[in-house]
Amino acid sequence: MGSDLTARFAALWASLAPIGRSGDSGGYLRYSWTSADADCREWFTEEAMDRDLDVEVDGNGNIWATWLPDGVDPATPAIVTGSHLDSVPHGGAYDGPLGVVSALLAVDEMRERGVRPATPVRIAVFTEEEGSRFGIACLGSRLMTGSLPADKAAALRDRDGITLAEAMSGRGQDPALLGPDPARLAGIDTFVELHVEQGRALQVPVGVASAIWPHGRWRLEFTGEGNHAGTTRMDDRHDPMLTFAFTVLAANKQARTSGAHATVGRVQAAPNATNAIPSSVTAWLDARAADEPTLAGLVEAIATQAKDRAGRDGTGFAATAESTSAETAFSAMLAARISDVLGGAPVLPTGAGHDAGVLSGHVPTAMLFVRNPTGVSHAPAEYATDEDCAAGVAALADVLTDLAAGSRDSL
Amino acid sequence: MGSDLTARFAALWASLAPIGRSGDSGGYLRYSWTSADADCREWFTEEAMDRDLDVEVDGNGNIWATWLPDGVDPATPAIVTGSHLDSVPHGGAYDGPLGVVSALLAVDEMRERGVRPATPVRIAVFTEEEGSRFGIACLGSRLMTGSLPADKAAALRDRDGITLAEAMSGRGQDPALLGPDPARLAGIDTFVELHVEQGRALQVPVGVASAIWPHGRWRLEFTGEGNHAGTTRMDDRHDPMLTFAFTVLAANKQARTSGAHATVGRVQAAPNATNAIPSSVTAWLDARAADEPTLAGLVEAIATQAKDRAGRDGTGFAATAESTSAETAFSAMLAARISDVLGGAPVLPTGAGHDAGVLSGHVPTAMLFVRNPTGVSHAPAEYATDEDCAAGVAALADVLTDLAAGSRDSL
Repeated sequence: MGSDLTARFAALWASLAPIGRSGDSGGYLRYSWTSADADCREWFTEEAMDRDLDVEVDGNGNIWATWLPDGVDPATPAIVTGSHLDSVPHGGAYDGPLGVVSALLAVDEMRERGVRPATPVRIAVFTEEEGSRFGIACLGSRLMTGSLPADKAAALRDRDGITLAEAMSGRGQDPALLGPDPARLAGIDTFVELHVEQGRALQVPVGVASAIWPHGRWRLEFTGEGNHAGTTRMDDRHDPMLTFAFTVLAANKQARTSGAHATVGRVQAAPNATNAIPSSVTAWLDARAADEPTLAGLVEAIATQAKDRAGRDGTGFAATAESTSAETAFSAMLAARISDVLGGAPVLPTGAGHDAGVLSGHVPTAMLFVRNPTGVSHAPAEYATDEDCAAGVAALADVLTDLAAGSRDSL
Repeated sequence: MGSDLTARFAALWASLAPIGRSGDSGGYLRYSWTSADADCREWFTEEAMDRDLDVEVDGNGNIWATWLPDGVDPATPAIVTGSHLDSVPHGGAYDGPLGVVSALLAVDEMRERGVRPATPVRIAVFTEEEGSRFGIACLGSRLMTGSLPADKAAALRDRDGITLAEAMSGRGQDPALLGPDPARLAGIDTFVELHVEQGRALQVPVGVASAIWPHGRWRLEFTGEGNHAGTTRMDDRHDPMLTFAFTVLAANKQARTSGAHATVGRVQAAPNATNAIPSSVTAWLDARAADEPTLAGLVEAIATQAKDRAGRDGTGFAATAESTSAETAFSAMLAARISDVLGGAPVLPTGAGHDAGVLSGHVPTAMLFVRNPTGVSHAPAEYATDEDCAAGVAALADVLTDLAAGSRDSL
């Protein structure tokens, strides 16, 4: 049975694996409303329909696939599981898709076990969880819950200047329908997201989330004076690359001394020419900490040091919060219940944001983690063994069965 | 007469000004073998033909327009002037085009003055002087003189992966014709390039170049381990952005202490995602110094410090020279003669590379500089007054007349 499930996992996993994969890096380029995203959506829709699930796409582009067991009132709030299919640039295969593949296989597993849930069981695929195209993480869940206004979202632009509204229209999704969806939210009894663990904190196949660190992304703008690299005296320069470089090192040092995380992973210089002093450098700071005062103190200290250095470089500096997420403490009672169902699975926090974190402000929410042997995530080397993934599916089936108050015909 | 020339300069200048101009920055995007470049070439060809010049395009894409005065043997080596029409990204209007516009107007001016040159007078427009698309500065003149092999050039790729050969073919220029052109080089008696000055070293309208600092561009590759920005402990990271940032600051400090110039104006992180530690950062170092030992010492010191830091960051570092130019000392005798012709114009060195520097290893070569009131170059604010530009045209006409052993019908 375990090896059967491992084989079924491997087969379904293999059917999704080629979509949006970069031949160069082996990582994934699955950005929302691109052709790779459309292929992922089609893949999911076909898999859901093969299982006789009822598929709907909401006004924010999130996909919902519902198993309505015989005799269950469709108005009953559902037990919902799922995750996302989009990726960071050249991201790994597991972050997001593992939760979607596991959800489909958990439904199979429950049916095979003869489980008869007392509520609908629904699978959610959220749009643009990574924020890789339009810059705001958990875009689909933030729109649904109303924490991101529809007009602000519609006007977001990707790196090529295309708005979200334009990108959605191009894929036949009406952007006029963007916005909060309280009815759909009210239809969720409990949400459980299964996700690959993203550090090396989990030593057994499956764990349960306690909390998500508060975190956010800030756009850092360094402005100077574009000029000729060969002829401009060093003393005459207003070079924003220097202020940027100093800030990268300051952010790292500050994060280390405060026990937090700070990363500058994205940078864009203008005009980005070898023989020109840049006129501006734009960079993004990703910062996370175990508690909100630490995070606020970290970002403030980085900004203070950047401003100070800008004064010495004769450059300008400004920081703008692009998205921030307060600390998310998942329901401790729910986490304890799930840990019990799983025979005492460990309960642990994470530094990564998830749609589950957004939903947790609105409905009872939990997360399952699957072991990550190397701790690598957001990179092509991200990995979990097929055996651990199958254990995750089995655990998810157990948890959904428990939450849906399912009775089993037979054991 | 002076005001006439100023008006003629302004009119011809205005006809070129709109081509390839960015509406956003006001700077220019004139990269070789793009549509903007094709428009610039067409503009030049029409202007040359309007003046009854004989226009040819050589196998490297350089354009030549010849004034063959009555009775002059076409085989006589020509007095050649000119510059380039391509730009750095969002570059200024003057760097390059001023030399081409001035060349056309100097021919007009000589004819209006009734000058009868004893040699052909030829205008050259060199391809990709800036190296903004294919990474090697003075591409057209290096190919012509044989300092860059044709096969190496043909395989150069732009940022989108398009090869020079493909880009040329796309514009109807056969890349099989790339390569050294000794016959054309032998047809040059003397080359004079007029160029906007690129610092604040020139206090009068027109000056003469003494030398070009040795300079070069090095590709710096910083490699690390891509990973999740939220979940990877600071101590577990191998973050190449840190090594890069340190190197930017080290290069600046080292240049200051050695009286040289070092600039990092171009950077590309991979995957360049906000929530991922980069797997690699590639940057380009532009370094220049008054003499070659200083330059070599500067680059070596920067590389040593970068390697040392890479050791501490657990990252990799490698530097590769993409193009280097030895010190160019223009003919002192020719510079003195030109200075005399111009009534004692100042003679000064520059930190900027030019096609004239490449040609100076093969034919007697000189440069005229036109005053730059702000010293800004390679940026939209690059500027020279119309009056100074007209003075440059008049000076160029004087110099070409002198070099072509021209006699005047009348004064």
